[in-house]
Amino acid sequence: MTIIVQKYGGSSVANAKKIRNVARRVAESYKKGNKVVVVVSAMGDTTDELIEMANEINPSPQPREKDLLLSTGEIVSSTLLAMALHAAGFPAVALSGPQAGISTDSSFSRARITGIEPKRIIKELKKGNIVIVAGFQGLTEEEDIATLGRGGSDTTAVALAASLKAKICEIYTDVEGVYTADPRLVPEARKLDEIGYEEMLEMATSGARVMHHRSVELGQLYNMPILVASSMVDRPGTIVHGGKNMEVQNKVRGIAHDLDVAKITITGVPDRPGVAAAIFLPLAKAGISVDTIVQNAGANNITDMTFTVMKDDLPKAMEIIKPVAKEIDAKKCLSDLNLGKVSIIGTGMQNTPGYAAKMFQTLSKQNINILLITTSEIRITCIIDGDRVIEAVKALHKAFKLDKP
Amino acid sequence: MTIIVQKYGGSSVANAKKIRNVARRVAESYKKGNKVVVVVSAMGDTTDELIEMANEINPSPQPREKDLLLSTGEIVSSTLLAMALHAAGFPAVALSGPQAGISTDSSFSRARITGIEPKRIIKELKKGNIVIVAGFQGLTEEEDIATLGRGGSDTTAVALAASLKAKICEIYTDVEGVYTADPRLVPEARKLDEIGYEEMLEMATSGARVMHHRSVELGQLYNMPILVASSMVDRPGTIVHGGKNMEVQNKVRGIAHDLDVAKITITGVPDRPGVAAAIFLPLAKAGISVDTIVQNAGANNITDMTFTVMKDDLPKAMEIIKPVAKEIDAKKCLSDLNLGKVSIIGTGMQNTPGYAAKMFQTLSKQNINILLITTSEIRITCIIDGDRVIEAVKALHKAFKLDKP
Repeated sequence: MTIIVQKYGGSSVANAKKIRNVARRVAESYKKGNKVVVVVSAMGDTTDELIEMANEINPSPQPREKDLLLSTGEIVSSTLLAMALHAAGFPAVALSGPQAGISTDSSFSRARITGIEPKRIIKELKKGNIVIVAGFQGLTEEEDIATLGRGGSDTTAVALAASLKAKICEIYTDVEGVYTADPRLVPEARKLDEIGYEEMLEMATSGARVMHHRSVELGQLYNMPILVASSMVDRPGTIVHGGKNMEVQNKVRGIAHDLDVAKITITGVPDRPGVAAAIFLPLAKAGISVDTIVQNAGANNITDMTFTVMKDDLPKAMEIIKPVAKEIDAKKCLSDLNLGKVSIIGTGMQNTPGYAAKMFQTLSKQNINILLITTSEIRITCIIDGDRVIEAVKALHKAFKLDKP
Repeated sequence: MTIIVQKYGGSSVANAKKIRNVARRVAESYKKGNKVVVVVSAMGDTTDELIEMANEINPSPQPREKDLLLSTGEIVSSTLLAMALHAAGFPAVALSGPQAGISTDSSFSRARITGIEPKRIIKELKKGNIVIVAGFQGLTEEEDIATLGRGGSDTTAVALAASLKAKICEIYTDVEGVYTADPRLVPEARKLDEIGYEEMLEMATSGARVMHHRSVELGQLYNMPILVASSMVDRPGTIVHGGKNMEVQNKVRGIAHDLDVAKITITGVPDRPGVAAAIFLPLAKAGISVDTIVQNAGANNITDMTFTVMKDDLPKAMEIIKPVAKEIDAKKCLSDLNLGKVSIIGTGMQNTPGYAAKMFQTLSKQNINILLITTSEIRITCIIDGDRVIEAVKALHKAFKLDKP
């Protein structure tokens, strides 16, 4: 049987009208003879509202209880979508994450899927049902409910698609696909017909909000093609895949940006083994995600260590880092809140000289100062002043001729 | 270990302040050295709001999906209560019905508990945790979520108390206990210190809203003492039990009333075997609960059949009954919407003559017409005009001297 997994985000199921619209789209795929599995997020701002309720009672709720609380949001939307399909005359069944056979580890609020036993889903598909699965959640070995954290429902969808050997995983969202740059900033930005997993991964981790990098990684791991398309308009979207007939190689594919960047610099760090661990271990333990890390080799075994975190995490990160800096005999802790990140992304970039130079030159022409540079095989990222990011994205989009097919 | 099960209803956990109040009460019992298991209902009007959301999408949602939807309400309140206990410095863990080991049959929306495997609860109690259980729900053999229907959380509490061999099951609600009559109608009504299961059962089925009869039945079956008390004030409440030192025997203990009564009369029913089944089977199948049934033996093998249903069920019941009446060659189907029920309840009533006569006389003095009479071992019920019920309750309360200890 041909199985298709579709995922609809919170804004696509925000109210009764939108849920009926999603039901219509799901039914269309079903009428074509597909076995359809649908993953849904919680309606609109439900998750934020539940967090607010919890915080009113306990400013720092225990993660286990918080996860059990938040998991109800996706159960609500999954049952309502099933009801909408019933109302339209289609057979459907709603399943919670545990009912769908999704197992996770016990890292509450950011659990990883450890396995999927989809026998209930397969049973329901064989009965002719459309199966609606509550995203973002699974069952731990101790039979607790854990949520998957950011991008959780995308991850649920791709993991289900992989375990069901689906033909494709379709992620429906409020954008029409993957663009050469954020179309809200760059009106000339073009939608890409297809993009490789690696490139999509770099786009996602560099600030493109269209998909979470976890689900792209999972897609790559299981070689599951992923369609990213709009839940509102019937347009083609972008296919993320690892196939050999990639559209283009050795070319900049897109410009990504991220305005949620804060920087911490520890100056005068003694350059000895164990120092990096001393700095980053307590941050990891506190659940603070560190992005770019740059160490400038200095003279006299003294170095400067710079790294970026999300803006909201800066106060807590500074609180943790200050005593650590003292302990390791570093000189100073500096922070900078108002930063941004701009990246150019394209497969094979490092094999083709000139891209980095062109990027730096373009920013220089705009009189934009580069604070940090990091590169990967298929990406070059510059950390710059947050107020100059939009300008930088526009200039780079033009310089790399992304407005032309 | 001494286990106490407490249950708090929806109005007791309607907002953050009330949840903190419940946490304080739970903690008090815990501090006395008890192992405490708490069952909660959904917050305030949550269940109604979820039903409204469902109806907006599908006017007649499938029971399986509706149950999965509604079950989220109790999960939300259970996690919030656990968080409130954490905030106050007490160890607590929230469990959904399935996590608590509650199994049910598959009669969605009115499931029966088929068994409880409380090993997770016992494990958490042994760890020193207060265990909060989402009421009103369980897991079917097919691993679907089913809700228990009306009075579900009370039933969960008593069933848990029985399976955990608790010392007592405490039902905290918005009334202070079981009264000789509804104190909103009869200011002289007295709170009873104790009442037998049988009497409580008759009170509950005769309209006293304080406890659902299912949980009283369950208490009786397992001989589990049940305390009914206020969640807001620290007053003694009423103990429902089967002990031998009953306060009083052979006495009217209370007056119950119910305004949700509609009557259907089928006239000219041929008095032959199978006729009653032909009438009541289709009603049962449609999930319509029939209360009082009276058949007046008539002449010439022709009889009149009268029964009562809840007011909301009347239109559907008439729709079902009309073709049935035709089929069995009955004469007419009549209905009466605006009725009420008033009952006097007390153990051993049938052994002591004069109670029935006094009841009828009291109503007659008030010029209240009696439409139907039914009796059980410990109850006499009259169906009367709905507009006269309050008057009848007051007069009976006085006539049987219930205002005096």
